[in-house]
Amino acid sequence: MTGGAAIQRMPTGISGFDDVAVGGLPVGRSTLVSGTTGSGKTLFAVEFLARGVMRYDEPGVFVAFDETPDDIRRNAAFLGFDIARWEADGKWMFVDAAADISEESLTVGTFDLGALMARIDRAVRQIGARRLCLDSLGAVFVRFRDRELIRHELLRLIHVLGSLDVTSVLTTERDEEYGNVSRHGVEEFVLDNVVIVRNILLNERRRRTIEVVKFRGGTHRTGEWLFTIDQTDGMVIIPLALLAPRERASQER
Amino acid sequence: MTGGAAIQRMPTGISGFDDVAVGGLPVGRSTLVSGTTGSGKTLFAVEFLARGVMRYDEPGVFVAFDETPDDIRRNAAFLGFDIARWEADGKWMFVDAAADISEESLTVGTFDLGALMARIDRAVRQIGARRLCLDSLGAVFVRFRDRELIRHELLRLIHVLGSLDVTSVLTTERDEEYGNVSRHGVEEFVLDNVVIVRNILLNERRRRTIEVVKFRGGTHRTGEWLFTIDQTDGMVIIPLALLAPRERASQER
Amino acid sequence: MTGGAAIQRMPTGISGFDDVAVGGLPVGRSTLVSGTTGSGKTLFAVEFLARGVMRYDEPGVFVAFDETPDDIRRNAAFLGFDIARWEADGKWMFVDAAADISEESLTVGTFDLGALMARIDRAVRQIGARRLCLDSLGAVFVRFRDRELIRHELLRLIHVLGSLDVTSVLTTERDEEYGNVSRHGVEEFVLDNVVIVRNILLNERRRRTIEVVKFRGGTHRTGEWLFTIDQTDGMVIIPLALLAPRERASQER
Amino acid sequence: MTGGAAIQRMPTGISGFDDVAVGGLPVGRSTLVSGTTGSGKTLFAVEFLARGVMRYDEPGVFVAFDETPDDIRRNAAFLGFDIARWEADGKWMFVDAAADISEESLTVGTFDLGALMARIDRAVRQIGARRLCLDSLGAVFVRFRDRELIRHELLRLIHVLGSLDVTSVLTTERDEEYGNVSRHGVEEFVLDNVVIVRNILLNERRRRTIEVVKFRGGTHRTGEWLFTIDQTDGMVIIPLALLAPRERASQER
Amino acid sequence: MTGGAAIQRMPTGISGFDDVAVGGLPVGRSTLVSGTTGSGKTLFAVEFLARGVMRYDEPGVFVAFDETPDDIRRNAAFLGFDIARWEADGKWMFVDAAADISEESLTVGTFDLGALMARIDRAVRQIGARRLCLDSLGAVFVRFRDRELIRHELLRLIHVLGSLDVTSVLTTERDEEYGNVSRHGVEEFVLDNVVIVRNILLNERRRRTIEVVKFRGGTHRTGEWLFTIDQTDGMVIIPLALLAPRERASQER
Amino acid sequence: MTGGAAIQRMPTGISGFDDVAVGGLPVGRSTLVSGTTGSGKTLFAVEFLARGVMRYDEPGVFVAFDETPDDIRRNAAFLGFDIARWEADGKWMFVDAAADISEESLTVGTFDLGALMARIDRAVRQIGARRLCLDSLGAVFVRFRDRELIRHELLRLIHVLGSLDVTSVLTTERDEEYGNVSRHGVEEFVLDNVVIVRNILLNERRRRTIEVVKFRGGTHRTGEWLFTIDQTDGMVIIPLALLAPRERASQER
Ligand SMILES: Nc1ncnc2c1ncn2[C@@H]1O[C@H](COP(=O)(O)OP(=O)(O)OP(=O)(O)O)[C@@H](O)[C@H]1O
Ligand SMILES: Nc1ncnc2c1ncn2[C@@H]1O[C@H](COP(=O)(O)OP(=O)(O)OP(=O)(O)O)[C@@H](O)[C@H]1O
Ligand SMILES: Nc1ncnc2c1ncn2[C@@H]1O[C@H](COP(=O)(O)OP(=O)(O)OP(=O)(O)O)[C@@H](O)[C@H]1O
Ligand SMILES: Nc1ncnc2c1ncn2[C@@H]1O[C@H](COP(=O)(O)OP(=O)(O)OP(=O)(O)O)[C@@H](O)[C@H]1O
Ligand SMILES: Nc1ncnc2c1ncn2[C@@H]1O[C@H](COP(=O)(O)OP(=O)(O)OP(=O)(O)O)[C@@H](O)[C@H]1O
Ligand SMILES: Nc1ncnc2c1ncn2[C@@H]1O[C@H](COP(=O)(O)OP(=O)(O)OP(=O)(O)O)[C@@H](O)[C@H]1O
Ligand SMILES: [Mg+2]
Ligand SMILES: [Mg+2]
Ligand SMILES: [Mg+2]
Ligand SMILES: [Mg+2]
Ligand SMILES: [Mg+2]
Ligand SMILES: [Mg+2]
Repeated sequence: MTGGAAIQRMPTGISGFDDVAVGGLPVGRSTLVSGTTGSGKTLFAVEFLARGVMRYDEPGVFVAFDETPDDIRRNAAFLGFDIARWEADGKWMFVDAAADISEESLTVGTFDLGALMARIDRAVRQIGARRLCLDSLGAVFVRFRDRELIRHELLRLIHVLGSLDVTSVLTTERDEEYGNVSRHGVEEFVLDNVVIVRNILLNERRRRTIEVVKFRGGTHRTGEWLFTIDQTDGMVIIPLALLAPRERASQER
Repeated sequence: MTGGAAIQRMPTGISGFDDVAVGGLPVGRSTLVSGTTGSGKTLFAVEFLARGVMRYDEPGVFVAFDETPDDIRRNAAFLGFDIARWEADGKWMFVDAAADISEESLTVGTFDLGALMARIDRAVRQIGARRLCLDSLGAVFVRFRDRELIRHELLRLIHVLGSLDVTSVLTTERDEEYGNVSRHGVEEFVLDNVVIVRNILLNERRRRTIEVVKFRGGTHRTGEWLFTIDQTDGMVIIPLALLAPRERASQER
Repeated sequence: MTGGAAIQRMPTGISGFDDVAVGGLPVGRSTLVSGTTGSGKTLFAVEFLARGVMRYDEPGVFVAFDETPDDIRRNAAFLGFDIARWEADGKWMFVDAAADISEESLTVGTFDLGALMARIDRAVRQIGARRLCLDSLGAVFVRFRDRELIRHELLRLIHVLGSLDVTSVLTTERDEEYGNVSRHGVEEFVLDNVVIVRNILLNERRRRTIEVVKFRGGTHRTGEWLFTIDQTDGMVIIPLALLAPRERASQER
Repeated sequence: MTGGAAIQRMPTGISGFDDVAVGGLPVGRSTLVSGTTGSGKTLFAVEFLARGVMRYDEPGVFVAFDETPDDIRRNAAFLGFDIARWEADGKWMFVDAAADISEESLTVGTFDLGALMARIDRAVRQIGARRLCLDSLGAVFVRFRDRELIRHELLRLIHVLGSLDVTSVLTTERDEEYGNVSRHGVEEFVLDNVVIVRNILLNERRRRTIEVVKFRGGTHRTGEWLFTIDQTDGMVIIPLALLAPRERASQER
Repeated sequence: MTGGAAIQRMPTGISGFDDVAVGGLPVGRSTLVSGTTGSGKTLFAVEFLARGVMRYDEPGVFVAFDETPDDIRRNAAFLGFDIARWEADGKWMFVDAAADISEESLTVGTFDLGALMARIDRAVRQIGARRLCLDSLGAVFVRFRDRELIRHELLRLIHVLGSLDVTSVLTTERDEEYGNVSRHGVEEFVLDNVVIVRNILLNERRRRTIEVVKFRGGTHRTGEWLFTIDQTDGMVIIPLALLAPRERASQER
Repeated sequence: MTGGAAIQRMPTGISGFDDVAVGGLPVGRSTLVSGTTGSGKTLFAVEFLARGVMRYDEPGVFVAFDETPDDIRRNAAFLGFDIARWEADGKWMFVDAAADISEESLTVGTFDLGALMARIDRAVRQIGARRLCLDSLGAVFVRFRDRELIRHELLRLIHVLGSLDVTSVLTTERDEEYGNVSRHGVEEFVLDNVVIVRNILLNERRRRTIEVVKFRGGTHRTGEWLFTIDQTDGMVIIPLALLAPRERASQER
């Protein structure tokens, strides 16, 4: 019976986000980042690891399902991140999970996360990772037909991650900006923490926002926060003070 | 043939809720607390037990499906609740139900609540519990495909709980703020009492409300009531008198 | 070939309802009362029988599916109804139908209403019942997967009830305030008479209304009528004359 | 190869409808009357036959699926129609089709319209019927799972009716006032003529309208027309001249 | 390898349509005409052939699925078209396809378009047809359960029609005025050209419009155009110049 | 481990698009172009290849699923493109994929992209293609019932295309202007880049827009941009400077 030491926070280093999150992501736990296509899920995941390396000297493991490690390296170059160098320095390690899935991909429904878990475990130990990203669960769960199985496998996954002593970001897909948190309506109930990134189309214009929906056992600022994507600074959540008065009024209300 | 003594109320001790509920939850019966992810279901359940221990010296049993007892202890620490101490004092007992489910988890549809019921029964007797929480039904029913089975098993569960002489809170999941009360549209018809917690997104801001939808055989205040989550006081339902005049007018209408 | 004597009405004794219904419920026929959870279906059914006993000295049979007779006795005590005494006086009789269902509950789809019908028939004769309530069909039909079967069984049920020379109220569940009349979209087409009770959530406030949707072969007032639930008088439909002028204008339009 | 003599109209005798229909229903063909529960489908069907007897001395056959002949006699008594007398005079004949369906009701999907067709044919010849009603198709088609089968059987039915030299009204059910014309979305494409009766709930008030949606090969007035149900005159479609100026403007627009 | 001679247009002769279509329908290709029930699909198809005979002396073949040739003759008589005479003159030929379907109608899913194709081919050659109508695809595809099969059969059909050197109109059904173009969401992607006829219900009034949605490899006027149905002139698309100024402004915008 | 050289852009040559795309399409990668029927998917694909030939002397391969090469040649003639000449000059090559699909079309679900991939590979090498179009995926995936399979096959396809050293455009179908990006909700998550073409019906008028939804690892202008289709210039995206002041304000906001 362990006493209840309150959950600590790990600053992400993403500009403005740690204010919204009142310190950062819950340490040692997993946070779900859910969004539509192009909403910035991978960007959040990559920056979480990159800022960890750059600002806090914390090594990170990136488990890639959708894109190959090489794709991610090249996409990150756009933001000035030299992942290959970090890999050489033992600060970043990829687990290429696409292979794990596709090999047995036609025996739908029998996929076992065991082998993958072992590889993740090895990578985390090898570089002493403090941060972990899994991008994205959608690729894993597209093959499970029923919610029970998804819930079950996800619980196992979270359980294993919990034992690795890392702070994790797991991304997942959604189809609409204001419907279910995740496609299957399962992930958000299983995970302790949920963040949503949105890319809203209104009057033919796009507007990006980020929101902490829940941090179990913790506080955070609520509602949606505007952000932009910047080639120099990556994701930039706009602080309340910078919003135009009228806009700010609506944010403070 | 028993005469009809009207249903008593048990004060929850949650700030402001007992006014809305005109006294508290119906004694000896089960109340469903339904909400979207992060709406405050677990908070309501935990506080119901914690306030019982702190204010009324009533022991409570917490049946945990989604989170481990350790997670709940740590999350509760955020609100200043020292559950571990209460456990040591015989005022709080966990039933870790995650195990019950996952052991046989792949024989979907054949899950039997019997063993779990026996463990709950034992825990209630052991500490002389007056309050009981089950968090959440979603984890149990995700494995039942058809509404008939859910209705049947839920009736059994309610029946057993009814015989334990405790006042219970059962939480359940919903996907949208203003659709069905519960995901399967079954729980709300089986249970005698229904409370909904909402976390409404409007104009990019969040607004939390709580509502007593029904108390069979009893009175209660109707409509949604604003609440905040406070690190010192937990859930705080805002009394009508504290609302700004314009807001109040709309509440009194 | 029987001549066509027009359908008589039986006053329910529910405050204000008999004005809306232009006399009461069609004598010797069944009326469907459909509503969301907590909308007042059971209240309507219980009051229909209770007012029958209290005002017209007409005995009634209550067939209980969802709640046990004891639950209903206790809930009714809240309104000051002493059902146990009426039972002793031979004015009220329960048929506890929960048992009928659950015994064979896992052989889904093969449920036979025959045994239940026989018990109802016996109860009606035993006390010379003039009024009958079945609360609720939802519990019965949750086990039928297809609309054809529901229609068929419901026709049989209505047919048997028609031969008992009682005036019946059958309750059924719906999920939304303004969609289908009943969950399966079958009951309302089979039954001669349909009443809807609503509990509408608008701007965080609740508003209760009752509406006669159809009385085959008869007249009635149309549209929704406001009502309140009162610990002294039960369901109180508000007469047009008592509505504020502006509200009344809208009701008269 | 027959020349194309244009389709004649048969006046229904329903107050105001023949103006909207520019003469009445297409002679020798079938017209679908679709509506939600209580919208007035059976009323239209009964009046079509009753006015035929009363005003034009044309005998009619009523094929009853949902209600028993006796129910219809009693319901019609409310409007002052003495169907039993007309039956005695050989002006009205019932075909009680409920039996045809229920006898074999559990061999879903194998129902054969053949026997029923023969009975209808016999009834039509026996009284020299000029008008025919089938109320309602819903009862027949609830048992067919797939649209192809419904289309096929309906085509057969229409074909047989076409050979009987009667003008027919077939009623069918719909679930919403402004969605599909019929529940299965099949009937309206197969039948030559479609009329919709609506019972619209707006601001807690009801408003009844009737609309001719299509008359293949013929003209008619378009849009919805208000009607009331009157104990003396039955269905009364309100002529444009009687509408208040503002209302009329909207109807003429 | 054939050079790319641009697609020619065939004037339909339907009043006002050829202006919207900038010349008429694409010669030698098939155009889908999609609409709800009673929207004017058959009218468009019949007029396309009738105007061809009357104004351009071009023979046409009408493949009838929903209505019998005799029904179509009679319905067309309403517009003053004497189809029987044109048949006698070798200018019009019916292919009665109802038979093809119904004969084997219960072996759902195995229907083969081959025999029908042969009959169409023969009819086209026999009268040297330049125009062809198929009314409607709905009757054919109601029997195919899956989109793949519909796509496949439709491709075959279009391919055969393409080899016949005729300009074709194929009608298809839709359930709502502003949803998918066709019921299965397949036809519009397979066909080169799509026209929609609408019969919109707004404020209890009907409004008919026609729209060219696409002409692959060609130009056309966009948006919806008002039309009326006239006993003398049939379908009359209203030219921009005749619209009231305010209405015109909205059309020109 | 390759270093992260940022992704280059290939100008499409489509008027105005390369401004929106900040240079053009990502070189060596695949871009999904999704749209409703007639929205301009094929036009975009054809122009991408045609402008490549005309302005940059880059050969292109067009893989045709929906339309035959001959249809595309003729449709392109409308825009003044002489594809046959380019084919003769070795600048354009068709892969007629319709055949690949239809041959084995009835063995649904077992379709293998292998043979097709080989043909594409051969064509690309033969003319030294720099650009590739696949029009459309809808024809391929209509035969796959489950999202897992679609995801899997699509990943394989993208992988093969990635190895060909071409810049690709893949079109896909959608049913509504503002719902899912693609019909199956799979393609947009697998592909690196997504463009949507819309043909919006508003107040009976059509409005065409194009939007870059995402370019992984790259920048682009966001939101919808108006375009017209012009017989001389093809697709013409309207630059901000040309919009009327009021319209521009709304675009700049
Ligand atoms: N001080 C605070 N300010 C704002 N929000 C807070 C504060 N404290 C807690 N919260 C939020 O309240 C939530 C409490 O939710 P709780 O865990 O009770 O939700 P739940 O309905 O049980 O959700 P789940 O579906 O995750 O089980 C936390 O997740 C957190 O997001
Ligand atoms: N005095 C009162 N003031 C406000 N609400 C009341 C009062 N008395 C009873 N109620 C509410 O009215 C409800 C009566 O509902 P009843 O049990 O008849 O609903 P029901 O439609 O049968 O619902 P269920 O789906 O639970 O069977 C009670 O649950 C309670 O919420
Ligand atoms: N005088 C009246 N005033 C108001 N409503 C009336 C009056 N007379 C009859 N009605 C209503 O009109 C309805 C007539 O409906 P009818 O039985 O024709 O409907 P239906 O469309 O056949 O419905 P069902 O789905 O039940 O078969 C009656 O049920 C009643 O509700
Ligand atoms: N003069 C007129 N005024 C108004 N409406 C008319 C007139 N003449 C015909 N109509 C309407 O136009 C319709 C013509 O529809 P048509 O038969 O072409 O429709 P459709 O789209 O083929 O429908 P279906 O789904 O029944 O095949 C007729 O049913 C009739 O309702
Ligand atoms: N000058 C023009 N004016 C207006 N519209 C035009 C003009 N030229 C072409 N169009 C329209 O643009 C469409 C081009 O669509 P395209 O074939 O590229 O669409 P698509 O999205 O590929 O559709 P599909 O689903 O049929 O494959 C043509 O069908 C035509 O309707
Ligand atoms: N400077 C910029 N300006 C505008 N948008 C940008 C800029 N830089 C990147 N973007 C957009 O942001 C997106 C980043 O999305 P990211 O890849 O993180 O999304 P995602 O949610 O992971 O999507 P997916 O579903 O594709 O995995 C890019 O695709 C691009 O469209
Ligand atoms: Mg991503
Ligand atoms: Mg919880
Ligand atoms: Mg009830
Ligand atoms: Mg009826
Ligand atoms: Mg037609
Ligand atoms: Mg195309």
